[in-house]
Amino acid sequence: MSETPAVRRIGVYTSGGDAPGMNAAVRAVVRTAWHLEIGVHGIHRGYAGMMAGTIEPMGRRSVSNIIQQGGTILKTSRAPEFHTAEGRRKAADNLRAHGIDGLVCIGGDGSFRGALDLINEHGVPVVGVPGTIDNDLYGTDLTIGYDTAVNTALDAIDKLRDTGQSHDRMFIIEVMGRHAGFIGLASGIGGGAEEILIPETRTDVEAIAKRIHQRTAAGKTSLIMVVAEGDEIGGAIALGERLKESAGIDFRVSILGHMQRGGRPMAIDRLLASRLGYEAVNALAAGAFNVMVGEVNGEIVHTSLEDTFTRKKPINPALVELAEILAQ
Amino acid sequence: MSETPAVRRIGVYTSGGDAPGMNAAVRAVVRTAWHLEIGVHGIHRGYAGMMAGTIEPMGRRSVSNIIQQGGTILKTSRAPEFHTAEGRRKAADNLRAHGIDGLVCIGGDGSFRGALDLINEHGVPVVGVPGTIDNDLYGTDLTIGYDTAVNTALDAIDKLRDTGQSHDRMFIIEVMGRHAGFIGLASGIGGGAEEILIPETRTDVEAIAKRIHQRTAAGKTSLIMVVAEGDEIGGAIALGERLKESAGIDFRVSILGHMQRGGRPMAIDRLLASRLGYEAVNALAAGAFNVMVGEVNGEIVHTSLEDTFTRKKPINPALVELAEILAQ
Amino acid sequence: MSETPAVRRIGVYTSGGDAPGMNAAVRAVVRTAWHLEIGVHGIHRGYAGMMAGTIEPMGRRSVSNIIQQGGTILKTSRAPEFHTAEGRRKAADNLRAHGIDGLVCIGGDGSFRGALDLINEHGVPVVGVPGTIDNDLYGTDLTIGYDTAVNTALDAIDKLRDTGQSHDRMFIIEVMGRHAGFIGLASGIGGGAEEILIPETRTDVEAIAKRIHQRTAAGKTSLIMVVAEGDEIGGAIALGERLKESAGIDFRVSILGHMQRGGRPMAIDRLLASRLGYEAVNALAAGAFNVMVGEVNGEIVHTSLEDTFTRKKPINPALVELAEILAQ
Amino acid sequence: MSETPAVRRIGVYTSGGDAPGMNAAVRAVVRTAWHLEIGVHGIHRGYAGMMAGTIEPMGRRSVSNIIQQGGTILKTSRAPEFHTAEGRRKAADNLRAHGIDGLVCIGGDGSFRGALDLINEHGVPVVGVPGTIDNDLYGTDLTIGYDTAVNTALDAIDKLRDTGQSHDRMFIIEVMGRHAGFIGLASGIGGGAEEILIPETRTDVEAIAKRIHQRTAAGKTSLIMVVAEGDEIGGAIALGERLKESAGIDFRVSILGHMQRGGRPMAIDRLLASRLGYEAVNALAAGAFNVMVGEVNGEIVHTSLEDTFTRKKPINPALVELAEILAQ
Repeated sequence: MSETPAVRRIGVYTSGGDAPGMNAAVRAVVRTAWHLEIGVHGIHRGYAGMMAGTIEPMGRRSVSNIIQQGGTILKTSRAPEFHTAEGRRKAADNLRAHGIDGLVCIGGDGSFRGALDLINEHGVPVVGVPGTIDNDLYGTDLTIGYDTAVNTALDAIDKLRDTGQSHDRMFIIEVMGRHAGFIGLASGIGGGAEEILIPETRTDVEAIAKRIHQRTAAGKTSLIMVVAEGDEIGGAIALGERLKESAGIDFRVSILGHMQRGGRPMAIDRLLASRLGYEAVNALAAGAFNVMVGEVNGEIVHTSLEDTFTRKKPINPALVELAEILAQ
Repeated sequence: MSETPAVRRIGVYTSGGDAPGMNAAVRAVVRTAWHLEIGVHGIHRGYAGMMAGTIEPMGRRSVSNIIQQGGTILKTSRAPEFHTAEGRRKAADNLRAHGIDGLVCIGGDGSFRGALDLINEHGVPVVGVPGTIDNDLYGTDLTIGYDTAVNTALDAIDKLRDTGQSHDRMFIIEVMGRHAGFIGLASGIGGGAEEILIPETRTDVEAIAKRIHQRTAAGKTSLIMVVAEGDEIGGAIALGERLKESAGIDFRVSILGHMQRGGRPMAIDRLLASRLGYEAVNALAAGAFNVMVGEVNGEIVHTSLEDTFTRKKPINPALVELAEILAQ
Repeated sequence: MSETPAVRRIGVYTSGGDAPGMNAAVRAVVRTAWHLEIGVHGIHRGYAGMMAGTIEPMGRRSVSNIIQQGGTILKTSRAPEFHTAEGRRKAADNLRAHGIDGLVCIGGDGSFRGALDLINEHGVPVVGVPGTIDNDLYGTDLTIGYDTAVNTALDAIDKLRDTGQSHDRMFIIEVMGRHAGFIGLASGIGGGAEEILIPETRTDVEAIAKRIHQRTAAGKTSLIMVVAEGDEIGGAIALGERLKESAGIDFRVSILGHMQRGGRPMAIDRLLASRLGYEAVNALAAGAFNVMVGEVNGEIVHTSLEDTFTRKKPINPALVELAEILAQ
Repeated sequence: MSETPAVRRIGVYTSGGDAPGMNAAVRAVVRTAWHLEIGVHGIHRGYAGMMAGTIEPMGRRSVSNIIQQGGTILKTSRAPEFHTAEGRRKAADNLRAHGIDGLVCIGGDGSFRGALDLINEHGVPVVGVPGTIDNDLYGTDLTIGYDTAVNTALDAIDKLRDTGQSHDRMFIIEVMGRHAGFIGLASGIGGGAEEILIPETRTDVEAIAKRIHQRTAAGKTSLIMVVAEGDEIGGAIALGERLKESAGIDFRVSILGHMQRGGRPMAIDRLLASRLGYEAVNALAAGAFNVMVGEVNGEIVHTSLEDTFTRKKPINPALVELAEILAQ
């Protein structure tokens, strides 16, 4: 980086649902900026803080000892006012007042939509870093937080397996994924679940009931079903009721909920966050204006922010088939 | 143990809800019997297997590499037929056919009730080992599996805390405990929960709503409530609905369910299981007939099986007060 | 607490080797003081900070979200100067300057020795809270941090067991315990180790080699030995070399080291820390001058600081025998 | 798979150092074979068992409840006799006697070398599955077990960090990697280590000592160094001694050793193992003779067994630079 960077002072914020590894990304942004002699300010509570002006300079020591922490030290927040032109003007004014001429936005699709408005209306360069447990952004193989969320779900499935094996019980476990089945599919395969219900595939309760009866007839006495919260069946409790009705089977239900957002980030999430935080600052320094930095096939890739949420990232159909064969 | 043991061949079984550490107890029973030159048979699937005759000899190597495993290699099962005199006679006949003249029953109150019937009707000596995550047996400070279940709940609370701190969210987490609040109280204090709802204390939703408003007024923006499944409010979902109604507050809900029964047992559960399994065999060898072996104040104590479930083990009221003071 | 407390402003510090759960104890001290309307200051870096004057008031929110964190937010430190009368006078002067008329010292024997000097020379009331992973303090059944350290060691042993079972390997794992074998004994029994070497028992390498040969002759192909760092053999590497020489056996060595001091505290450590932190403030408020608060048989007990380290807390010999029988 | 498979009965074995996820691979092999109506036998203890004839049919239920288990149910073993032509002939005879006409070899480079001899001398088709924690095989982005080993190392580093932050201590942690620095580099970056020493990069102790002094001068009081066992410095203890000499700094040492081979496999290792086990059987069925199945950029790739160990898989130099910048 011998040329003059295109930015002199950047702001970094986390936004939307928090994800494990966001702190590692913040750390990478701050230290890379320091390395490139670019100033860096932390914006607290996402767009809410951008409008309220809760913005503070961050030194390289301010991000010591956070790489392993879940959550985000910058916090996130809902910010309905940011959906108004007036709110966004306030935010842009605050950025200008702090001398911030570039932003790193760590978040998911909702956060990137907001960033796009800032870019379009106020000309603030923004580089996005994919931080969401849902893994549903186009332009990156993995999002920060996804691997940790999958392992949290997997840990729960393993524990159910212990007791299922011991007591011949049937379980339904509900995992996150309002619009995407990545967590459900990965934790279901990894946990050896007999059935995996995700938004991307059609759910046929009668067929499931039939397969369960075949399995019990073949001697399987315990069973684990993973259901994504966004599956059309409507979640674990609804599924349990439907199966009780149609097949007379009693299921025990676990609903993991937001615990999937927390916890120490796994290695992969820390590495991805470190790399993408670093690349985001480099992108801003090189004049990038409106992209998300992602990792695709091991390479750093820039994708326009709009594409990250308008283009669909599909699940791997080979994995769906694999799940069925291995659950025999 | 220089004298002739009072038993020559014992049977060991796990029964009722499984608990982490049951395998460590089975291992201790088998190896202690081997040490005392007493034969030992494993009865699979509790009373169901006792009636069905799924009974097999266990050598000291048969319990290798199980001390760390959740669940129970002997499995447990429902056994409605055992509630009939005919069922129990079948069980007693099978024991006699296998030359079994003493039993170690690893389980909770339901299992001990069954054991008592065997003792009374068929004169089979039974020594109980307290294996249940609920910790609700009189005659022992801790039951096997309780510490692991508490730590599983605590791990979930910690993860909620990460995201609660980051996003100012309010959480309700439902933990096990149909009749007893031990898991709820310990995980709630350990997790720093603001409210803990357990069967042993009266739940006043209006008062809770008021305290929540006081807390938010004082600047607390995230909050964790632990509710035992057996609390009179009726669980996490019911509580969430009531608070939504009476205070207009939205809560996110996690329901841990049976995952609290699984997982690698914590050190305390393994030590307790090892010690009590050992003492159970020693008790049978010394002629004990109808007791549970427990640990009270670090000492081994024998309590009549009947007392273990008819006498109430109270929660420590000092802990309830402590919880309130520390959650300020 | 209707009477006027005997103290008006207390200082709290952590000292010596840090232990998981110290933060939970600090939280309990601060919130209990707030509840009793007693002022509370945090002294950073133990005696070093007491001499340097790094002392700050702590509000009840200053201890939010720390109950689950390993380490200590107050830090600890070596403080050789405190071993001089001049150093201690400086410390006492600082306490007086901050209006501190009572101290809660969270630490082990070295920390309590220092406290005793402060009491004797300067009349500062000090109440101790047992915070050390070694569990080697008289006057409490458990010390804060011990259960977490045991479980960390146990987790390592479980992992060795996986690979030992798969590849027929022999392992030595070195755990902490310079003068006491509590961690070694508990993790060894909980991990099903074949040999446990601790300072309290005599180590006979020839006898060990003989038992190993007996075991391999009987078909055991993998083996785990736990050795406390303070065992007279001199640690894992020394033991491995001795066994290589005397028995021709190759061992793989793991040395856990300080990782046993870190990590999220287990439930038991948090509960103990919460309770003892609370009781320490109550004790100061009631006029206690020179005691450690501990938990013995579930009850709160006060022991003179001197007794906590001059009186020996023995390991339970029943557990040593148990270990031998169960490792068959 | 509508055509007749090229094999009718396959054998599956695990070989070399065991790795977490091997069981998930065995499960996938068995169930995929069942799905394709190909017979499958398990060969116990790798090449040793192939020579000894410890070979047994495996039904689809024989791999129930193993996906989450560390180690390998098929065990691995050293087999010096297999390095002789006579040993290999014995193995080939046993395979023929059991009607095995294809093999799935789950292991690393040593295992694949053996497989190559079988192919060349006896014409047995072998498909390799990359199972080693070291990640040092060409032809696959990741090997089975690697992610779990990295996370085990990371967990240890996090724990050191807790106590390092609290007590201003300096740590060296030795991780696995005799010839490759993948584990060291990933756990070092993920753990935020200040120095990472791996075989692929030159180690300059004087330069390290200088950087440490700069860091302490700049106010960093604790420090974590990760060293791969295969670094030219000779491991953690050697490094500690060198730094003590040349810089007068005391380091605390942790040596993780074989615990990195154990533990429940992470999600990624289970998914990779499931997918590659499935693909290995499909490859044999389609007539593959001498390849390893790997995953490169999300796609299944076949690489000749020889290439997997003769071609070098480099570490990513971008990550080495990243590590230096972020550790500032």
